[in-house]
This record gives sequence, C-alpha cells and structure tokens, in this order.
Amino acid sequence: ARQSDSQPGERRIDFPVSVVLPAGGTGERTGLKTPKQFCSFLGRPLISYTIQSFERVSWIQSIVVVVAKENMDLMTDIMQRFQHRKVRAVPGGSTRHRSIYNGVLALGEQKEEEEGSVSVDRPKVVIIHDAVRPFVEEDFLYKIAMAAKEQGAAGAIRPLVSTVIATTSEGYLDHSLERTKYRASEMPQGFTYDVISQAYHRCTESELEFGTECLHLALQFCGTNAKLIEGPPTLWKVTHKRDLAAAESIVKETLSRSACVITGGSSCAETLANALQKAAGAVDMTLDIVPDLTGDCVTYLLTECNFIQVSVNRCCLTELKTLLTDLEEENRAVLQPPVVIWIHLSSLEELSVNGTTPGPAAIMDVASAAKLRNILLYGVWLHQSEAEPLKRAPRSSTSTCRLQTSVVMLDVTGILDAAS
Amino acid sequence: ARQSDSQPGERRIDFPVSVVLPAGGTGERTGLKTPKQFCSFLGRPLISYTIQSFERVSWIQSIVVVVAKENMDLMTDIMQRFQHRKVRAVPGGSTRHRSIYNGVLALGEQKEEEEGSVSVDRPKVVIIHDAVRPFVEEDFLYKIAMAAKEQGAAGAIRPLVSTVIATTSEGYLDHSLERTKYRASEMPQGFTYDVISQAYHRCTESELEFGTECLHLALQFCGTNAKLIEGPPTLWKVTHKRDLAAAESIVKETLSRSACVITGGSSCAETLANALQKAAGAVDMTLDIVPDLTGDCVTYLLTECNFIQVSVNRCCLTELKTLLTDLEEENRAVLQPPVVIWIHLSSLEELSVNGTTPGPAAIMDVASAAKLRNILLYGVWLHQSEAEPLKRAPRSSTSTCRLQTSVVMLDVTGILDAAS
Ligand SMILES: [Mg+2]
Ligand SMILES: [Mg+2]
Repeated sequence: ARQSDSQPGERRIDFPVSVVLPAGGTGERTGLKTPKQFCSFLGRPLISYTIQSFERVSWIQSIVVVVAKENMDLMTDIMQRFQHRKVRAVPGGSTRHRSIYNGVLALGEQKEEEEGSVSVDRPKVVIIHDAVRPFVEEDFLYKIAMAAKEQGAAGAIRPLVSTVIATTSEGYLDHSLERTKYRASEMPQGFTYDVISQAYHRCTESELEFGTECLHLALQFCGTNAKLIEGPPTLWKVTHKRDLAAAESIVKETLSRSACVITGGSSCAETLANALQKAAGAVDMTLDIVPDLTGDCVTYLLTECNFIQVSVNRCCLTELKTLLTDLEEENRAVLQPPVVIWIHLSSLEELSVNGTTPGPAAIMDVASAAKLRNILLYGVWLHQSEAEPLKRAPRSSTSTCRLQTSVVMLDVTGILDAAS
Repeated sequence: ARQSDSQPGERRIDFPVSVVLPAGGTGERTGLKTPKQFCSFLGRPLISYTIQSFERVSWIQSIVVVVAKENMDLMTDIMQRFQHRKVRAVPGGSTRHRSIYNGVLALGEQKEEEEGSVSVDRPKVVIIHDAVRPFVEEDFLYKIAMAAKEQGAAGAIRPLVSTVIATTSEGYLDHSLERTKYRASEMPQGFTYDVISQAYHRCTESELEFGTECLHLALQFCGTNAKLIEGPPTLWKVTHKRDLAAAESIVKETLSRSACVITGGSSCAETLANALQKAAGAVDMTLDIVPDLTGDCVTYLLTECNFIQVSVNRCCLTELKTLLTDLEEENRAVLQPPVVIWIHLSSLEELSVNGTTPGPAAIMDVASAAKLRNILLYGVWLHQSEAEPLKRAPRSSTSTCRLQTSVVMLDVTGILDAAS
C-alpha cells in the first residue's frame, strides 16, 4: 500500500493513511441551489478538485467521501466521469459528527469490501478534511499525518483574521480577546484510527448532535491533546458564491504557469521558442523547449503543463493532430483542460504559392473537435520574411529567420478566460 | 449638506456624517506587488469601488482617504480619473491607529479648507471603514450611523467562521471557545466625532502603536460601550489575491442583472423584446422595454443598467451610434463599462437586395471605438422570414414576425468574461 517506499524522492510515510471527506453540506451560504461541493468551475465540480488533491499523494491509500443519501448517484457519477480511483462514497448521517463517524466506520470495514475494489489496510492514521477546501497540499498533509501518528491527534490552525469580541446579552461590546493567544481551528485534522474511533464510540448523543470539533472529542473522550500546526492560506474554505470565482482564479493561475514548446527540430521554430521562453520568464511562467514528445519528453504528456506547437512552412495540420491524439490517449483532459497553442510560421512565398495552407476555418474545425474532448486549442499565424533584414537581429545557424509580427500574445490565463 | 431632506424616498439622516477610509496597507498578504486597495479589476482600482459605495449615499457629505505618502500621487490620479467628488486624500501615519487619527483630525479641520473644495460641516458622526471592503451597502451604513449617534459608538459584527481555540505555549490545544458567545469584529464602525477624537486624544502612544480596534479605544478612554450590529456577508474584506477574482465576479453579477431594451417602437422588435424579457426573467435578470430614451426614459442613461438596441431592417448604424453618444455624454462609462448589445433584425429580402447592410467589419469598427471609451459593444444578427409560418407563433398586430434563429445568447456575464 505504500508506494513511497519505491519512490525515494518523496516523503516517507511508512504507515497506512486514509481520508474521510464529509461532503453532506447543503450549501445554504453560497447563494446557490446546488450544494457548494457539487458546484462546478472550469467544467468540474469542486469536490473533484479536493479529491484530486488527495489522490495525487502517493502515500494516501484511500478516501471515503460521506454524502447525503440524495446525492449518492451524483457522487458516483462524478467519481466515474473524472476517473477517481482511490475513492468510495458512503451515506452521511444527520449531523457533521455522525457523517464523519460513518466515514471512520467505513474505513474500519474496508477489508470486507466486495471484489473489484482496491485492497487496503485498516489505516493507522485518519485524516479528516472538508470537501470545500480544494487546495490542500502534500507538504501539509505530511505534517498532519506525522503529528497525528506521534500525538494521537493533530489539527491545522490559522491566525485570526478579525478581532474576536465577547458580546453582552444586550448586544454591546463586553471585551475583545487578545488576538495573539487564540487561533482559528481549520482543516485538515489527523487522528490515529484508535483515537478517532474510540472518541466517537464513547461520546454522547448530545455531542454527536450538536458538536462540530473533532479535536474536542479526542481531548474529552480519549484524553488526547492535539498538536496544532499552522497551515498555509491555501487551506481556505469555499463558503460563499464569490469563493467559487476565487477558486477558479487559483486553478487558472496554476494551469497557466508552465508550458512545453514543441519545435519539430526546426531552427526557425527554436529561435521563436527561445524568444517566447524569455518573454514568459518575465511573467513568472516556465516554458520548456523540446523537439518532439518522444523519448524522455513523453513525460510532458502526463504532467499538468500546456503546449505550444510550432509548425514551420507546413501545409497541413499533421503535427498538431498527432499532439491532440497523444493527449487524448493519455487521458490528459479528464481533470483539467490542457491549452494547446498552435503557432504556424509561414513564409510569404508559402502564402502566395501554396493554396493548401490551412486557413482559420480548418483550425476552427479542429478546435471545435478538441473542445468536445476538453482540450482548448488556439491558433496563431506568423508570417516571416527573408527579404527585409533587421539590424541587430540574431542569426540562427541554418537560416535567417525573423518575425514581422512584433507582438506575440501568449497570456494563457486570458485565453482561458475567453474560453470559459 | 443634507440632500436627503429633499428626497422623501430615502432614509432620513438629519446630522452630518463623514467617512474615514484608512488605505495605507502594504498588501503583503495578497501575493501582489501593488497594495491590494490599488489593484484593479474590470479596469478600476479596488479603492474606487469602495469610494463609490459611499459617494452614492446622499447623506454622506465627505470622505477622507488616508494613504501612505508614497501613494498620494496615485490616489490623486484615481480620484481624477474616476471623477470622485466627495473625496480628499490625506497622508497616513506609521500605524493603522495613527492613520485613522489623521483622518479624523482632517475632518475637524475641513472648514479651513482651500477654495474650490465643497464646504462641509464638522461631522456629528464619523464612519470608519476599510478601503478593501468595497461592497458596503447604504442600509447597513444607515444602521451604523444611527446607532453611533445614539450610543456614541457602533460596530459591525459577523458570526465566527471557524472555531476559535486557545493554544498552550507548547502548541497544543488548550480549550475551544463556545462559538455562540463570541463574534468577529468587522467594519464599518461609527462614532460621534466627539467620542472618536477624544479617544485618540486621550489614548497612549502604546495604543497608537500596537492597537488596532477603535471600539476598544472608545470603551477604554471615553467609557463608551459600542452597540454591535450584525452585518451582511457583503462586508467581507479583500485579503488575498484570490479575493480580487471574487470581487470581480460580484461586480460582474451586479452589472449583468438588468438591461434596458430599446425597440424603436417597431412591433417586430417588441415581439423579440417580450421573448427576451421572459427568457431573462428565468435567469433572474430584469429587462425593461422602452421605445427610445427620450422623455422619462432618459433616466436609463443615468442608471447602472445595460442596453439592448434592436434595429429592424435598417441599413445603417444610426440608432446605435446615437445611444453610444448619449452614454458618453452622460459619463456612464466612467465607473463601470456598460454593455450594449445591438440586435439587427433583417429580412431575407434586405439581405439579398440591400448592399449597404452593415457587415461584421463595420460593427467591429464601432465596437473598437466604443471599447476605448469603456463601453462594451456586441452585435447579434437575426434573419427573419415571412415565408415560413410556424404553428402557434404569436402574431403581432401590424406584421407577421418570426425568428428563424432559435436561440438568442444573452448571457451578459459570459460576454463580460470574454471581453476582460
Ligand atoms: Mg471538526
Ligand atoms: Mg478598528
């Protein structure tokens, strides 16, 4: 169950860790009809982003999502559509604590599962997280898991964002708390399986009904004093409708941060690629330049980067279509839409002589077909001339290659905006 | 100074109210280089949205923005560019309290101002607000102003979003607070001028240096116990970079909520307008239908609605250009970009006979010119036929008017997305 044993670059967790994601909320604070964990942005529901954050951590063996009975079908559909592998859904209870308890119990029963599901151990540590905090990172999960194993319980904290004040029963200021002595309790929290299951087993009906804080149960019913760890701002919770726009902006920014430029080995294309790389660096975007996606470079098809395909004087879309087919075969578009920008570098001779140069209509047809497979394709035409040498233009080794077009727009975030 | 006396529909505030907006923050939490109050979305800095929220309240007489010395020029430029009238900027101090104190002192000196500025009374009530909470509403400002006048001090509170916990010095859970007894202290807060100026006059250097809570000063140095009033979620504070995307989404939603359809009096256009009105109602958008913008309807040019101009069988852009000129003359595009959708209803006869029908190139020229004046223009062509009657189609009185195009896209939010 522990893939990290064979992957030396990763953090080593040598005990089984599983996750409970309570997702039974009704979304009353978002101003939306759909519960917020099921609201979509960029074509995917929020909860799928959260699940992905856990699934990509190699040492997390399984995730139990606890959903209201009426949303079980929806959840099953999401798991299939976005090909989530480590997840199963169990029905929730009438309160947050009852739902989490159901999830913990499901983890304990996992050995008796029906055939076809992945065989997993009863976890040593259970991480509890909110379905509406999609951006939790592996680093922090590692800290929580390690502290939970050592102390029995651990939880994320954040500085208070507002002064906390006590009010009189008449609605007047009584006193304000000294901000440095208090913290906001956030998610994720981690527990040994024994602590969290015993805490729920021992606690009262009243706790299950009205309580919300798991750390409190561990302290009260197991005497386990939680280790508190300050988490990053990314632990933030999607609460209101406006937060969906904020979450979308974070995903877009991540998506737009890196791209792979495919030159086909042409020196002209390489000159352009180097110029793009420099320009992208100035806006904190990383471009890698490769001749093609064979050999070691095939890994780019598996990572979350975008692609810039440069075609030189080609009269058909072959290279581009190969890239699109490769992306589809690797299922790269299931979780996030990759952006592909096709730059067609053509000489004036080609324009005037060759009637088969693909025009905007052809690229738009390919783009429409790609969009249906969740790939966002854009075309840029650049016309180069060998007739008008510019002063101080760098010369490439095999041919003189200059661009008449002075500005190349490659703001991928903007492009995603336009496409959404 | 009190316009509300002559405007019976508004809430009556019969004492002078002014505002202090501390805007000296350095933006270290946004992940942005620019302090967040000066970050722009939809072409306008955050602080201008906040100022607008106060400027449109008739009973607020003046606003003092307190900015760091190095940002005075920037602030002056913003005030001019977005034509803010009730505002002046004063330099801030080294801490939040010193900055607010500077603002309060400036309000007291306002009588001695140089020529040219609006003459205003020393305020009875001072409202203090954060520059980074742009969506404060008149209703709530009214409650704060009234309570401040009666009690001497009043402040906004919100329910706690997280459990607040006390930590031991070793970083373990000590206890968690009972959530119902505590509240988060938010902005705006209101004080009588006497209470806030005396509190600052009497308080210690240490308070000015390390304190943050104005309500606390009023209690400690004037014995004034603040009335606490629960505020709406819109009081929320732009803190992180992601919050700028959230703020933008709120502005877009507000912008897309209402539009005025101009039919030119044509029955064909009215049939279309009625269908649009029904469709818009289903997505919580309000469309008003008018023949033109003369008479009482001229007020639409002054409100924050968008426009749909329907032109029937016209071979030129006259109506559209008149609307754009009117909008420009009313300065409607200074604060928010109005969206204008031009629907050109043409018969097939017109298409085949009349060579002067404006094509996409012509409308794009007009749109480019409008964009420079912050007006977002979109064109939709609908071709109508009198040759193919549909069953159950409603007949208008003067002509049979049916649309071959089955779907009319009018998602103004989406259009704004594409334009941004
Ligand atoms: Mg809890
Ligand atoms: Mg304060």
